[in-house]
Amino acid sequence: MFKRTKYCGQVSEEDLGKELVLCGWVHRVRNHGGVVFIDLRDREGIVQVVAEEKTYPQAYKVADSLKSEYVIAVKGTVRNRPPGTENPKLKTGNYEVLAQEIQILNISDPLPFPVDEETHISEELKLRYRYLDLRRESMKENLLFRHRAYQVVRNVFLKHGFVEIETPFLTKSTPEGARDFLVPSRLHPGKFYALPQSPQLFKQILMVAGFDRYFQIVRCLRDEDLRADRQPEFTQIDFEMSFVEEEDVMSFSEELIYTLFSELLGIELKRPFERLSYTSAMERYGTDKPDRRFGLELIDLTDIFKNTEFKVFADTIKAGGVVKAINFKESNLSRKEIDELTQFVQSLGAKGLAWIRVEEGKLNSPIVKFFSKQEIEELLKRTNAQAGDTIFFSADQRETVYKILGNLRLHIAKKYKLIDEGKFDVLWIVDFPLMEWDEEEGRFVALHHPFTSPKEEDIPLLKQALETSNIEEKKKLISKVKARAYDMVINGYEVGGGSIRIHKREVQDLVFKLLGISQIEAEEKFGFLLKALRYGAPPHGGLAFGLDRLIAIMRSLDSIRDVIAFPKTQKGVCLLTGAPDYVSPKQLKEVHIKEME
Amino acid sequence: MFKRTKYCGQVSEEDLGKELVLCGWVHRVRNHGGVVFIDLRDREGIVQVVAEEKTYPQAYKVADSLKSEYVIAVKGTVRNRPPGTENPKLKTGNYEVLAQEIQILNISDPLPFPVDEETHISEELKLRYRYLDLRRESMKENLLFRHRAYQVVRNVFLKHGFVEIETPFLTKSTPEGARDFLVPSRLHPGKFYALPQSPQLFKQILMVAGFDRYFQIVRCLRDEDLRADRQPEFTQIDFEMSFVEEEDVMSFSEELIYTLFSELLGIELKRPFERLSYTSAMERYGTDKPDRRFGLELIDLTDIFKNTEFKVFADTIKAGGVVKAINFKESNLSRKEIDELTQFVQSLGAKGLAWIRVEEGKLNSPIVKFFSKQEIEELLKRTNAQAGDTIFFSADQRETVYKILGNLRLHIAKKYKLIDEGKFDVLWIVDFPLMEWDEEEGRFVALHHPFTSPKEEDIPLLKQALETSNIEEKKKLISKVKARAYDMVINGYEVGGGSIRIHKREVQDLVFKLLGISQIEAEEKFGFLLKALRYGAPPHGGLAFGLDRLIAIMRSLDSIRDVIAFPKTQKGVCLLTGAPDYVSPKQLKEVHIKEME
Repeated sequence: MFKRTKYCGQVSEEDLGKELVLCGWVHRVRNHGGVVFIDLRDREGIVQVVAEEKTYPQAYKVADSLKSEYVIAVKGTVRNRPPGTENPKLKTGNYEVLAQEIQILNISDPLPFPVDEETHISEELKLRYRYLDLRRESMKENLLFRHRAYQVVRNVFLKHGFVEIETPFLTKSTPEGARDFLVPSRLHPGKFYALPQSPQLFKQILMVAGFDRYFQIVRCLRDEDLRADRQPEFTQIDFEMSFVEEEDVMSFSEELIYTLFSELLGIELKRPFERLSYTSAMERYGTDKPDRRFGLELIDLTDIFKNTEFKVFADTIKAGGVVKAINFKESNLSRKEIDELTQFVQSLGAKGLAWIRVEEGKLNSPIVKFFSKQEIEELLKRTNAQAGDTIFFSADQRETVYKILGNLRLHIAKKYKLIDEGKFDVLWIVDFPLMEWDEEEGRFVALHHPFTSPKEEDIPLLKQALETSNIEEKKKLISKVKARAYDMVINGYEVGGGSIRIHKREVQDLVFKLLGISQIEAEEKFGFLLKALRYGAPPHGGLAFGLDRLIAIMRSLDSIRDVIAFPKTQKGVCLLTGAPDYVSPKQLKEVHIKEME
Repeated sequence: MFKRTKYCGQVSEEDLGKELVLCGWVHRVRNHGGVVFIDLRDREGIVQVVAEEKTYPQAYKVADSLKSEYVIAVKGTVRNRPPGTENPKLKTGNYEVLAQEIQILNISDPLPFPVDEETHISEELKLRYRYLDLRRESMKENLLFRHRAYQVVRNVFLKHGFVEIETPFLTKSTPEGARDFLVPSRLHPGKFYALPQSPQLFKQILMVAGFDRYFQIVRCLRDEDLRADRQPEFTQIDFEMSFVEEEDVMSFSEELIYTLFSELLGIELKRPFERLSYTSAMERYGTDKPDRRFGLELIDLTDIFKNTEFKVFADTIKAGGVVKAINFKESNLSRKEIDELTQFVQSLGAKGLAWIRVEEGKLNSPIVKFFSKQEIEELLKRTNAQAGDTIFFSADQRETVYKILGNLRLHIAKKYKLIDEGKFDVLWIVDFPLMEWDEEEGRFVALHHPFTSPKEEDIPLLKQALETSNIEEKKKLISKVKARAYDMVINGYEVGGGSIRIHKREVQDLVFKLLGISQIEAEEKFGFLLKALRYGAPPHGGLAFGLDRLIAIMRSLDSIRDVIAFPKTQKGVCLLTGAPDYVSPKQLKEVHIKEME
C-alpha cells in the first residue's frame, strides 16, 4: 500500500510539481475520452485527480474501472489546472494531480443514497447507514465542530485550574430526578446499579474531598419519555467549584460560553450576560427559557379589567387568575389565520382565543362589545395598539396563561418568521423559587434539585414553614424562598443550569424535611452525601451545560441528532446496530432476572 | 464569605507583607499559650497561619475554637517565620500568615481516620469514606497526575490530527468478548441494551465514515469475574487510523507513551521500543506479557534430555512435551525455601518441582542421579550453572511448562526482590497467532478479536484451512497464520493492544467461518459492520490503552483502585454509595423484568 503523504483537501500551491500520495474515496468519476477525472475525497476535502491514457496508460486503465466510493491510493504529481478549468468552489480548485499509479484499496457496492448535500434522505435511512450519512460534508463538519468545541472548553477549564476527574457509570439509583436506567448485578442477585443521570453527588463529594475545582465532559443517561428531540444519553459539560458564590460560577460560565462563540464562530458575545429574574421571565415571556430574538411580550391587563362587565375576564380575576395579552404588531391577520392560531391554543388545552384586530378607526373583535370605553382606551394604550395589529388574550390561572401565551408567542414567531436566525440571545435566569407545590404529588418539589441552597436570608422562612402546620401558610412562606440557582438560556433553550449547593448538614436536613423526604429515605438514598457534609464540606457550587444542545444551537441546527455521531431515534433505537435487542436466556439467568409476562 | 485571593500551597516570597485571603481545611491546630498555630490545607498545599491573642484577639478567639478539618477562611498578612522555625518540608515553610480575621465556613465531626500518610487505613474504610481518603496527599496526587495525563494524551492526539468523537453507551450486546452488562429497555419490552466493552465496532464505523483519525478517552464496562485488581468499569485511551499499516500505529503509540513518561515523569524512554515475537516471549518468559526487569529466563532443555533415562522427562518428551528450566543465580536456597517454591507451583497445579542446587564441586538434587554424565554437563553449560545457583525444572506440555515456570519466575522475583522498581521495561509483543484452538469450546477462537486482520501472506493458509475437513490439518494450517496485531507491555502488564483490522468483506467472512460464526449469527451480531465493509471501507487499524493500569504503573502503585476516584471492591460494590442496591418493584415493572426466584 502506498503511504499517504498529504490530505486531498490540503493540496496547495507549495505542492506544484511535486510527487504526492493521496488516499481517499472516489467522490465522482467521469471519462472524457482518454482522460479520466476523479474527484478524490478525504476528511480534509476534495482534489481533482487526472488519469491520462497517453501519459500513464496503466493508471488510466485503473482509473477507468473506478466507481463511486471506491477507496484508492494515488501516486501523482501536482500541476495547475488548464486556464479556465479552475473550480473556485474547491479549496484545491486551482490544481490537479496527474496520476502515475493508482491502487484500489477497496471497492464499494452502489450506495443506497448519494453522499451529497442536495439529496433529501429520510431520517430513518440516514441513521441506518450512519457511516454514509457521516460522509456528507455537513455532518462531517458538525462532528469536527464538536471536536473543536471539546478542546476549547477544556482549555478554558485548564486555564482556571480545574481538575478533570472521572466519575462512575455504575452507580446507585436515586429518586428526585428522571427515571434511571437500571443494570442488574450478577454478583448481587436482586440488586441493581443505575446509570448516572448526572455526576451531581460525586462532584459534590469531590468538593468535600478538597479538589477545589472539578470538571468533566461526561455522558449522562435518563430513561425519560422521549420527546421530539431528546436522547436517552447525552453529554454534559459538568463542573463544580469550592469557596465560591453565584457570581464566581456565573462569571466563569460566561467566559466558557464567550470563548466558545469567539473561537469557533468569531462572535464576541456581550459580557456580562443579561440577567432576568424567574418572575420577570414568566411574566414577560410565559416561560423561564425565553427566546428574546423577537418581541411579542406578554402584557398584563388584569388591573384594567378588574371591574369589567365581561364575565369571562371578571370571573377569572375574581378566582385569583390573570388577564394577559400579546400584541402581534402589523400582522394584518385574516380571519382564517386567527382561526388557525385559535386551533393552536386549543391544542394546548385552552378553551378558545380572544382577540382584537385593530383596524383603521375601528376594532374588529367578538369580545370588544363587552368592554367599557375606559377599558378599551387603557387596553389600547398599554398594548401600544395601532392599525394592523392583532391582540390575543388569555384569561386564566397564572400558570395556564403563561403556558398558553408563552407557546402562542413562539408559535407565531416561527410561523411568521419573526426570528432573526443569525442572532444569539444569551441570558441568565436567576432568583428561582427554591421549591414549588406539586398538586399531583401533594408535596413541595425542588425546582432544581434538593441540594440547591436557599438564599441565606430566606432560611428563616424555611424554618417557619417547617414549624407551621397550616398548609396554606406553609405554601405562602415557601413561595417566598429563593434558590441560589441560575440557568443559562440561549435562543429559548436552557443550555445550562446550576446552583450554589447546600454545604451545611442542618440546612440539608431542613430542605429534605420540607420536601417530604423522611430521615430514613434521605439516609438510604443520599446517606453518603449527608455524612460527607458532617466532615468539613466547603461552600461550593457549579453548573452543567448540555453539550449536544449547545453545539446544535451554535451550528443553527434544529436537531441534536445532527451533532451526535450515533444517535438514537425517538423510540430509543439505534438503527445502525439494532440496539436494544433480545439477549439469550443464559445472559438473563446470569443476572438473575426474567422477563415479565 | 471572604473571597479567596490565593491557594494556601502557593504562598511565596512575593506575598511578603501583603494581605491575603486563604480558604481551606484545618490540617493541624495547636495553642502555644496566647498563640494558635494552624496548618491550613487546600488542594495546592499547606501554609502556617498564626493567630496571636495580643495582636488580633478576635481572630485568636476563633482560632482557639478550631478543630481538625474545620473549613475556614482567613484574612491575614504574610510574613517570614522567625529564624530557626522554618519548615523545609513545606513549600511555604519560610512564611506564615498572621490572621487578622477568621471565618468558620463549616465545622467537622471528628474523622474516622486521620488525613495523613502515616496511619494505615483498611481498604474498606478508605472506600467508605472516599472523600476523606482523597484528602490524603498521596491520593490527591494520584488523581492530579491522572488529570495531567489526560491533557498530555489529548495534546499528542491533537498534534497528529485525530478527531475526538463520542460513541454510545447504550448499545448492542455482542458475544466474542467478555460478559456484557445489560440494561433492560422500557420502551421495548423484552429487549436490552448492553454497555460497551469497548468502542471497537464504532471506531471502525467511523473509519468507514471517513474521519481518518479518531480518538476518545472512554469508559468501558465488562461484567467479568473480578480478579484481584480488576474493575467492572475502566477507562481506555482509544484510537483508530485509516490508510495505515502496523508501523504507523506503533510509532504513533510510542510517541504517546514516550510523551507521557517524558512530560509527567521526566523519563526519556528509548525509541523505537523493543519488539519481541509472541513465540519468543512465550519461550523465554512463559507469557506474552513478560516483565524483563529481571532475568530468570526460561531455558529449553528438551533436546538435551530427548534420550534420557529419567522416565519423567523421557515420557513427557515422547508425548510431545518439553523440558525447561530456570536458573536462580547465586540464590543459595535452603531446603525450606525450595519447599516453599514447590508448594507455590503445586498451587498452580504442578505435581511437583524438580530442582538442582549447585554447590561447590557437587550437585544437590533428588533427580540428578537419573541423568547421564553428558546430560549433566550439557545442562550445566546451557544454564550457565555455578556454585550457589538453584535450577528449577518443568517437564510437561508446552503450555503447562510456560504457565508453571512463567509464574515461578515472577514469584521468585517478587519474593527475593529481584525487580528494579525504579525501572520501566517497555516492549511490543508482535507476530501473534490469529487464532488458537479452544479445547473446551471445540473451536478456534480469535486471540485478539474477530476483526483483526491476518497477515496478507497468510490469507492463502486460511483459505486452505477452510477447505480441508481434516481437523488436525486445519489446526496445523491455522497455527501458522499470524495476526497483524501488537500489544504493548510495561513491567509485565499489557497496557495496550491493537491491530490492523480487516477492511475487506471477503476476508471478514473467511475469518468468521473459521471461527465457527455462522452467516446468520454474523449478520445478526455484526451485520452493520459487515454491511459497512461493502461500502468503501478504508484500510485501518488502531489500538487501545488501559488508562488506569498505565497510570498505576507510572505512579508505581500496585492497585488501580488508587488511581480511580470512586472505585469498586472486588465484589463490584461501591462502598461510598452502596451500589448496587435494591430498587422498587415499580422500577422493575417499568422495564418489564422481574427477579428470578
